[in-house]
Amino acid sequence: MSILVVGSVAFDTIATPLGSCKEALGGSATYASLSASFFSPVKLVAVVGEDFPSRYIELFKQRNIDTAGLKVERGRTFRWKGEYTWDFNSAKTLATHLNVFSHFNPVLPEKYTLSDYVFLANIDPQIQEQVLKQVRSPKMVICDTMNHWIASKKDHLVRFLKHVDIFLLNDAEARQLSGENNLVRAARAIMKFGVKRVIIKKGEHGALLFGKNSVFCVPAFLLESVFDPTGAGDTFAGGFIGFLARCGKITDVNLRKAVVYGTIMATFAVEKFSVQRLLEINKNDIRKRLKKFVTLTCFR
Amino acid sequence: MSILVVGSVAFDTIATPLGSCKEALGGSATYASLSASFFSPVKLVAVVGEDFPSRYIELFKQRNIDTAGLKVERGRTFRWKGEYTWDFNSAKTLATHLNVFSHFNPVLPEKYTLSDYVFLANIDPQIQEQVLKQVRSPKMVICDTMNHWIASKKDHLVRFLKHVDIFLLNDAEARQLSGENNLVRAARAIMKFGVKRVIIKKGEHGALLFGKNSVFCVPAFLLESVFDPTGAGDTFAGGFIGFLARCGKITDVNLRKAVVYGTIMATFAVEKFSVQRLLEINKNDIRKRLKKFVTLTCFR
Repeated sequence: MSILVVGSVAFDTIATPLGSCKEALGGSATYASLSASFFSPVKLVAVVGEDFPSRYIELFKQRNIDTAGLKVERGRTFRWKGEYTWDFNSAKTLATHLNVFSHFNPVLPEKYTLSDYVFLANIDPQIQEQVLKQVRSPKMVICDTMNHWIASKKDHLVRFLKHVDIFLLNDAEARQLSGENNLVRAARAIMKFGVKRVIIKKGEHGALLFGKNSVFCVPAFLLESVFDPTGAGDTFAGGFIGFLARCGKITDVNLRKAVVYGTIMATFAVEKFSVQRLLEINKNDIRKRLKKFVTLTCFR
Repeated sequence: MSILVVGSVAFDTIATPLGSCKEALGGSATYASLSASFFSPVKLVAVVGEDFPSRYIELFKQRNIDTAGLKVERGRTFRWKGEYTWDFNSAKTLATHLNVFSHFNPVLPEKYTLSDYVFLANIDPQIQEQVLKQVRSPKMVICDTMNHWIASKKDHLVRFLKHVDIFLLNDAEARQLSGENNLVRAARAIMKFGVKRVIIKKGEHGALLFGKNSVFCVPAFLLESVFDPTGAGDTFAGGFIGFLARCGKITDVNLRKAVVYGTIMATFAVEKFSVQRLLEINKNDIRKRLKKFVTLTCFR
């Protein structure tokens, strides 16, 4: 089943202790779409400026990503500049130029409105809501957010969560939104807002999936070299929803496996700058890494 | 098979955001012995002062812990005072009174010298070495340390590691000792000192077991309320070596299971102050928690 991915397509300028890159392809929708496309066809919703190279649009198309919802507007594409120290868990933002993204308010192409699986990447919760209203009968809605929206639009976000099946956020954001320090309590408090399941991403420490009566805990894959963590969370989300859409059935074990596939996809994303590794790998690489992951975590 | 545990027996005065306790039974050897005693008989080596209540010595004996090596010396028992903020991963030491522990240099009772499994808790590496020399043919030597010894006695510690089968340390200590930020590289660098395996404890984020050609990664058990993390690492070590000694065979799968049992024992320790929870639980509680842990981590 196909997946609707809504978010940003951007150019990232990044410095890490291991190197730097300038104006490389990035953005939440880019990472999530490319990651999900290994499992299911994707319909991309985003906006770029006139400076966006057509070769990137071709790239999406080659990867089974429908770009009918990728609007090219007058102006420049969203740009982000950030840096990481050795603590790869948090980026320091040096510059954000929203450009055409500042008035992102997409109208879905007709064929997109029948999507079953919807991933609303980290954007203004009011826009997330407006996009979701255009989808006729979504089967599974997954939503991401960030500290900025929790601080500035908490009420909107909380109201919107009633329409969300799975809410993705990181540990700091879960604490910020719930006011609870303990992550079990934080997840429970967030589920009281009406969202069915919560995934808390803990960066290099893995991820937690909370349901009403269940918890699944997955450690992160151990990598000898993390090169650039940008996009790891969105790549995780793409692998997660991609796998679920391929399964077609939402069961507890499929959700757990989806978290593992999300984790594995994220490990590729961080190995090189931008989406470079996601463009190099194939399905066999994913299979091999899954096998390694089982060896890494198995104790029976 | 019986286990030799060498370390401190102390009184802890602790404040956490959830409460406080005064002069409660603590110390690395206390936690490790009580934890290990659920799996195998323990021989305790430590020193206390004349102020140490005989009821605690009785308590050890009731738990299948041999106290022939628990020396009572003139003077006062080791006292530690510390506090935790909501970040339960690191304690702030407010006072350390080594008292009789300051000249701890144990001579093993004859019957102790035949021990197969040896746990050298966090003490001066020179003392760890002197104790180990008295054990005739140890089958498995597990050694812990702390930042203080890495800073002040690195050369001694590194030389001693040649005699150690499994070295336990936390993530910050692994980085400090190896000079490597990445934990995979850190473990590899530490194994170059001659130790066969390394366990890196990551507190609430679980633990990693590194062998020459293998890695095992276990998430921590999710607890809704962590009450007092003091002794978690030593309780982990006790469960780990206790299970291994009970198995009698050092295989890759037994080592992995031992890490899981260590993790589970640690989850009990942190639920109440001091060793209170370790005294309340029975083998059935451990079995039940293992079952929960499998549910928490299983994805196949």
